[in-house]
Amino acid sequence: MIRTIDHIAIAVADLDEAVELYEKTLGLRVTHREHVDSFNVDIATFEIGGTAIELLEGKSDDSAVRKFVETRGPGLHHIAFVVDDIEKSLATLRAQGVRLIDETPRRGKEDTLVAFIHPKSTQKVLYELVQLNKKR
Amino acid sequence: MIRTIDHIAIAVADLDEAVELYEKTLGLRVTHREHVDSFNVDIATFEIGGTAIELLEGKSDDSAVRKFVETRGPGLHHIAFVVDDIEKSLATLRAQGVRLIDETPRRGKEDTLVAFIHPKSTQKVLYELVQLNKKR
Repeated sequence: MIRTIDHIAIAVADLDEAVELYEKTLGLRVTHREHVDSFNVDIATFEIGGTAIELLEGKSDDSAVRKFVETRGPGLHHIAFVVDDIEKSLATLRAQGVRLIDETPRRGKEDTLVAFIHPKSTQKVLYELVQLNKKR
Repeated sequence: MIRTIDHIAIAVADLDEAVELYEKTLGLRVTHREHVDSFNVDIATFEIGGTAIELLEGKSDDSAVRKFVETRGPGLHHIAFVVDDIEKSLATLRAQGVRLIDETPRRGKEDTLVAFIHPKSTQKVLYELVQLNKKR
């Protein structure tokens, strides 16, 4: 089911400040920035050998990312796996009794289709499935 | 400085139980298991396209991983970056005023050299540097 790790997402309070820290401290360079409407987040990604570190800033009070930062502070947020067929993967998980946050895929960054698995089914780790619609 | 993402580490309460969950739910297969003396942890890794998911169980009461699980529950623990020369990377970070947990490298899994950056310097995300001593 799982092909590769697309990204590791990190929730931050201020995207520009976090990007500056990652560039200065870790010597990384931003490879992509986008506002993702469906989640109301601004993202900045650092592609590192096929997997990306993705910084996320929630842009509204009802954004899950902003709530996370307000409650727990900034930090590791989720891991995203690339799958070939997200509908098929969701059906497989559902058949196993796995709890899903998204029963149907939503639009992610760069025209991907994404869906989150409920962390209650994965020992408190939030996993995202990503179906890429274009080759990297 | 950073070459690739070596692994994403996840703290768990019971390694065997977590491995079973990852194999059944996500269809992943364990690629390596080891007890790492220097950190007193048992690890199981799932290699996925060059980056690994690494499950960690602390094996003593003074293990940082066990304390993490007892305090916050299981969950995302740290991200490990591969660097060419860990001593040089630590010197670069130190020169920038970055706070380090390990001033000198320790022995990690599979004969690697590892050192952790203090999360106070990286907006609460725990990063590990890994110098591989053998090619994958």
